[in-house]
Amino acid sequence: MSNKPSLAVVGATGAVGTVMLNILSKRENVYGEIRLIASAKSAGKKLTCRGEELTVVALSPEAFEGIDIAMFDVPDEVSKEWAPIAASNGAVVVDNSGAFRMDKDVPLVVPEVNPQEIKNRPKGIISNPNCTTLSMIVAMGALHKEYGLKELVVASYQAASGAGQGGLDILREQINLVANKSLGDEAGDIRKVVKDFGPFSDPLALNVIPWAGSLKEDGYSSEELKVRNESRKILGLADLKVSATCVRVPVLTTHSLAVHAIFDKEVSRSVAQEVLRNAAGVELVDDPENYKFPTPVDVVGTDPTWVGRVRRSLDDPNAIDLFVCGDNLRKGAALNTAQIAELVAAEF
Amino acid sequence: MSNKPSLAVVGATGAVGTVMLNILSKRENVYGEIRLIASAKSAGKKLTCRGEELTVVALSPEAFEGIDIAMFDVPDEVSKEWAPIAASNGAVVVDNSGAFRMDKDVPLVVPEVNPQEIKNRPKGIISNPNCTTLSMIVAMGALHKEYGLKELVVASYQAASGAGQGGLDILREQINLVANKSLGDEAGDIRKVVKDFGPFSDPLALNVIPWAGSLKEDGYSSEELKVRNESRKILGLADLKVSATCVRVPVLTTHSLAVHAIFDKEVSRSVAQEVLRNAAGVELVDDPENYKFPTPVDVVGTDPTWVGRVRRSLDDPNAIDLFVCGDNLRKGAALNTAQIAELVAAEF
Repeated sequence: MSNKPSLAVVGATGAVGTVMLNILSKRENVYGEIRLIASAKSAGKKLTCRGEELTVVALSPEAFEGIDIAMFDVPDEVSKEWAPIAASNGAVVVDNSGAFRMDKDVPLVVPEVNPQEIKNRPKGIISNPNCTTLSMIVAMGALHKEYGLKELVVASYQAASGAGQGGLDILREQINLVANKSLGDEAGDIRKVVKDFGPFSDPLALNVIPWAGSLKEDGYSSEELKVRNESRKILGLADLKVSATCVRVPVLTTHSLAVHAIFDKEVSRSVAQEVLRNAAGVELVDDPENYKFPTPVDVVGTDPTWVGRVRRSLDDPNAIDLFVCGDNLRKGAALNTAQIAELVAAEF
Repeated sequence: MSNKPSLAVVGATGAVGTVMLNILSKRENVYGEIRLIASAKSAGKKLTCRGEELTVVALSPEAFEGIDIAMFDVPDEVSKEWAPIAASNGAVVVDNSGAFRMDKDVPLVVPEVNPQEIKNRPKGIISNPNCTTLSMIVAMGALHKEYGLKELVVASYQAASGAGQGGLDILREQINLVANKSLGDEAGDIRKVVKDFGPFSDPLALNVIPWAGSLKEDGYSSEELKVRNESRKILGLADLKVSATCVRVPVLTTHSLAVHAIFDKEVSRSVAQEVLRNAAGVELVDDPENYKFPTPVDVVGTDPTWVGRVRRSLDDPNAIDLFVCGDNLRKGAALNTAQIAELVAAEF
């Protein structure tokens, strides 16, 4: 590394941005200047990163002057407009929105799975996958290398913070409302006290909601299609069969997934456990005899993809069932973005 | 019906027993005497059923004298000992424990799916399926009749009350403990205030736990094997392929399941929706355009199996993905038991 690149964090004040500043403060210091960028209404706000107080600047073409790498965590339409502007100003953009993930000229990168793809960036943009895909893909990539992945059937247990700070705030508010009340024995009970659903369609406290994202064709949610399309692109398996049902659960942060994975070859539980135990970025916690498996309350705030409940399917010698947890704001968003940016930073 | 049979409710004071008394008070009155039976420590307790105050009597051989039908909702080992005693006293036993479900001389009955099986009861015992199986099987039975079921991949979202009154109580207590606190951003945060896990291995408030039941071979939980073995027996499909991952979620009552079902024939989303719309005991709520799908807070306290998110799998024309909810204390336990008992009562 001859020269430390400068970094912009766009969307610095959001749920993922907040985690990003924390991550940047704790990982190896590979950057020169760090500039915080957000919408005009957050400009002037002061935030701490690497122990320094930084003042947030408003998003503008000038904000990218002198920036080598720009991380974006903003809504799709903001990325769509501003990532190309940052790129044309000379920054390599690492974008965490859905705007460019399926663009064939934009690589979709998970450093443990396909780091080589960062070089293929004709637009100067690299995409970071969706948090749900990211919560399982490191583990599935490791098993794919061993056995050759053919099909995934996935059911998700997605945390409130997957819908941003508004999701976190509303779940906390709803938990406060339902506490110390005798509710929940009759249909609609919870609705007597929970009236504001925030970014969700229904109460989330003491409930699960089988929906995440926007409506796509044939009854699918955007989140379900992302799991399918992004898994295919990251693993380089254009024909991978994927069925996903995405469900929001009353967890603050950390997505979990129950995965049924079918491979080209016969699998063994102990070999699969060994593969996962040795995989970079994966922690295996699979000791059901002692009731040890990953759960969100112990995964939140940590970096790895946590895997447990590894079983060979009883009726298919080529299939594995497992349960996986990942902090959706860290590996599912900020951490993976930071890891990609560090790969780019190593080019300087 | 020439004569109203007498009924015993064994385990009348538990979570399911409480719902049972409510159900017996609201459904058609097909019984003569109703006798409430529980453990010696609950004897003498007074409970209301059909508007009458009844005094709980202690479990003993004499307690079954003059009883035509006995419903049991007690732990496996209590059923194992006492159901044969009740049967030898002349009662037809409808048992909701796991003690007899896989006994080839005991039918496992879901009235909407295999009502004819109640006649085949050489031991005088009829078993009621596990709540997780019951939460989906009416819907799957209807689709099986249309398309021929080949395989199920299931991930569950199981409510606290599936672990009994102790499960309900501990979730309520934990919700009260985490309310109005800034917790959940770091691993182990929730454990600072939640120390008592009740029947669970980990905190359940603001968490999900990938475990239900006891440890069986090869890393499986008893609950996962029940879903497989009971689905096979109820549907009469000895070779049905079933993969299940059972997960507890912070919902008070109502189990949900994400189901990937593979059939012998090509499926159509609209035909599957029509089949479910017309199926006895099923309510279809499948209007994602208006964010309408079943969720536990609106299903609790109701009788049907609620189905939504019906989709044809994108990569398998023979497969359907859907989301199903059922009140685990009603259809998942007390209601199905009551329905079986009513089929028996019609013989009198």
